[in-house]
Amino acid sequence: MTSAGTIEDAKGPAEQRLALRQMLGEDIVLSETEELLRFCRDWHGDVTSGTVAVIRPRSTQQVAAAVKACRELGLSIVPQGGNTGLVLGAIPDAPERQVVLSLSRMNRIRKIDPADFSAVVESGCILSELKDAIAKMGMFFPLALGAQGSCQIGGNVSTNAGGVNVLRYGMTRELVLGLEVVLPDGSILEGLSTLRKDNRGIDLKQLFIGAEGTLGIITAVSVKLTPYPDHVATALLGLASLEDAIKLYRRARRDCCDLMSAFEFMPPLAFTLAQEAMPDLPIPISAEYPAYVLMEISGSGLVDVDDLMQRFLEGVMEEGLVLDGTIAASQTQARNLWLIREGMNEGQAKRGTHMRTDISVPLSQLASFVEEAEKAVSEALPGAVSVSYGHVGDGNVHLNVLPPAGSTPEERIQLIYRAKTVVNEVLDRYTGSISAEHGIGRLKRPDFDARLPATRRKLLTALKHAVDPEMIMNPGCQLRF
Amino acid sequence: MTSAGTIEDAKGPAEQRLALRQMLGEDIVLSETEELLRFCRDWHGDVTSGTVAVIRPRSTQQVAAAVKACRELGLSIVPQGGNTGLVLGAIPDAPERQVVLSLSRMNRIRKIDPADFSAVVESGCILSELKDAIAKMGMFFPLALGAQGSCQIGGNVSTNAGGVNVLRYGMTRELVLGLEVVLPDGSILEGLSTLRKDNRGIDLKQLFIGAEGTLGIITAVSVKLTPYPDHVATALLGLASLEDAIKLYRRARRDCCDLMSAFEFMPPLAFTLAQEAMPDLPIPISAEYPAYVLMEISGSGLVDVDDLMQRFLEGVMEEGLVLDGTIAASQTQARNLWLIREGMNEGQAKRGTHMRTDISVPLSQLASFVEEAEKAVSEALPGAVSVSYGHVGDGNVHLNVLPPAGSTPEERIQLIYRAKTVVNEVLDRYTGSISAEHGIGRLKRPDFDARLPATRRKLLTALKHAVDPEMIMNPGCQLRF
Repeated sequence: MTSAGTIEDAKGPAEQRLALRQMLGEDIVLSETEELLRFCRDWHGDVTSGTVAVIRPRSTQQVAAAVKACRELGLSIVPQGGNTGLVLGAIPDAPERQVVLSLSRMNRIRKIDPADFSAVVESGCILSELKDAIAKMGMFFPLALGAQGSCQIGGNVSTNAGGVNVLRYGMTRELVLGLEVVLPDGSILEGLSTLRKDNRGIDLKQLFIGAEGTLGIITAVSVKLTPYPDHVATALLGLASLEDAIKLYRRARRDCCDLMSAFEFMPPLAFTLAQEAMPDLPIPISAEYPAYVLMEISGSGLVDVDDLMQRFLEGVMEEGLVLDGTIAASQTQARNLWLIREGMNEGQAKRGTHMRTDISVPLSQLASFVEEAEKAVSEALPGAVSVSYGHVGDGNVHLNVLPPAGSTPEERIQLIYRAKTVVNEVLDRYTGSISAEHGIGRLKRPDFDARLPATRRKLLTALKHAVDPEMIMNPGCQLRF
Repeated sequence: MTSAGTIEDAKGPAEQRLALRQMLGEDIVLSETEELLRFCRDWHGDVTSGTVAVIRPRSTQQVAAAVKACRELGLSIVPQGGNTGLVLGAIPDAPERQVVLSLSRMNRIRKIDPADFSAVVESGCILSELKDAIAKMGMFFPLALGAQGSCQIGGNVSTNAGGVNVLRYGMTRELVLGLEVVLPDGSILEGLSTLRKDNRGIDLKQLFIGAEGTLGIITAVSVKLTPYPDHVATALLGLASLEDAIKLYRRARRDCCDLMSAFEFMPPLAFTLAQEAMPDLPIPISAEYPAYVLMEISGSGLVDVDDLMQRFLEGVMEEGLVLDGTIAASQTQARNLWLIREGMNEGQAKRGTHMRTDISVPLSQLASFVEEAEKAVSEALPGAVSVSYGHVGDGNVHLNVLPPAGSTPEERIQLIYRAKTVVNEVLDRYTGSISAEHGIGRLKRPDFDARLPATRRKLLTALKHAVDPEMIMNPGCQLRF
């Protein structure tokens, strides 16, 4: 990453921006240098880059024209949605020859069809706006993440976003029925089918899901809907250990079947962190237990989830697997339970720059991995605080490390670097993933690259050359070819 | 397709078979010409081809060695699982230069891990054997198809098989966690991870799912498991129309939520056809209704599916949406209801060669499509009988056409050709799919080819050249490049 100054220093980029304005129209290409910068800063504010230009098309045809114009000028393209990604996938790393192509203006919901259990929407539509419009028609789009008020559906698909409902509904990939993609040669791959089943050979759309814009620009998607789950039962439970939380998950998976929609684990520190961010947040359970689970069962129609939650908890409390628990008696109480989960993230941010991870291991090894990794961190970095939480059912843990209070910025950067090395060393022994749901982007490229087997690298390279022979799509993201 | 005689006529192939036996071992390469033929005949017995040789490796390394040997000899490879496919994807079409590579001997279940909700299995394992082994450990692998006693899991993945449980659990693609693939250059792409979530960039395994062996040979897979559904409620319902069956599906999807595991529709003729195949099969419902639905709700643990089915049917019968119905009171009764569904297929086969389709349209258009297509068939082909049945929730209909009794083989072939043209003409107006779940293979290649947009063809061609530059993997399947 270079500093933002680059934009003004370079003469070439300014001329190229002018050329783009002439080719695509002044309305489409941002002019002011200051305006450009907000498209070049990442979600956490850790990195600010620069860019030749920011292009903001209003239609698929304008995206195609922009791709052709960039090719002509020898510029490469960094597609950007809501810019809420956590791995620098949508921020240029070569400001003098990369443009940002923002999908924000392509935000139309083209169709919601409850009778067909499907919707068709342009990439720039903000996730929560899509979810709300769908909910108004009695239907449900299950993708749910902290950033849903800002992230865009195209970015969600491009990064194959995860979130809290994956254990029931799968990653974004499993919610996609079709894609419209502008390819690196400027042609349009049309495929906004709403067919539930279509087995006509190799499924090309799969290539672009999770590719983070390295193979093309997703301009619209068709997605699966389910009936809106009117009935939701939410509980916060105290347990003796993460190991017990995993036992409880297995039990819940069987007892509550496919009606369980979330199963998040948190350490007791979650309450402190949440209240540091939201001092008035009620914590309706004692903070004395070593592990907590936030569990949700949901359903529609004739399914009685309250009764199911009640009977489930009676059984597991009687057996001593759950030590204490509270069931939300209202939507407000349920919302407050989820605010603990969200507030703990804000609380970590308030404690300053820290190490964030997004790890997955096989479910059966989750507890021993967390124990071993936290031990390794505390031995290597005295005074640092590990915060492990995440999605039990997916084997997905965010093991974060907070530097000791009062650490200088330089000390923090050093500590983060060392913590990452320590945690990855344990992770590699578990053959886990360094990115369970956040993607690779530019931030994780070195770690991805270092672990990439030769056969896989060769195939990825062949693929990239086949689809994007001029290497203009999001270079520097995921892999350097 | 050429006739079987080709094998004996050609001198080259016999020498090449000998060379393969020397290179790979006599144990691995079948010698007798007669033995070869059973690998060259399709499931329906409609087509018999020939082959240079049949290679039957026992390990991934032997598959890799076989691929290298074939490349050296200038032979191409047709991978074959249980050979139960319906579109000639696993049968050579150039017997003088293609070998069949059968995965049947690679049938080991490497691991079933209930604590991890996963299993790892070699491609040649027969689906029902895998399901049984998993069930013994209290777990469930949801893929369910008529051919499950013969088809192999590698073939299921390679063709992205569908079946009767797709509406709840998705196509095979959604059940796969990882793949081991031998690539066209003989290298091994290792990826038998059991991670539930792994978002490290482009997901290479997706390329091979549904590719029908055109990009590589799947040698082993890791799959997702769920708890075994101990409680199953099965009902056979009589309705006024297919339109009402779709209304009922929408209602059931909301009322029974994610607990519905099957929702199949059948015409009244299903009973006649089933009894033609199984004369003793009890039919526990009057055959007087225009449409029937076979519906299944299933669950494990604390979920009471019997009560749910009861309450659901009470509601919809009171409203008049369901006119008559019977709930299976035992596993045997449930099994007998499913035998109607399976028997109607056998019954069609007994009436001789007929046209089979595997169509999908958007759910909201299913009833009007079937009405229009059946009308077109009866107008164009007087005396022919349309039989439409399938998976309502997936918008997937098998609209088959039976020639009039007493038709000669030649008349049947002509009628099938004309029926296909008539049905596809209607389908194209609905922008549906000519292959909802069966794949393309060689049988549907011309129809696929004729409907393939230029952008999609260009991308598929680039992909094929990138992964299989020497074009040795299953040439003639899906597309000619």
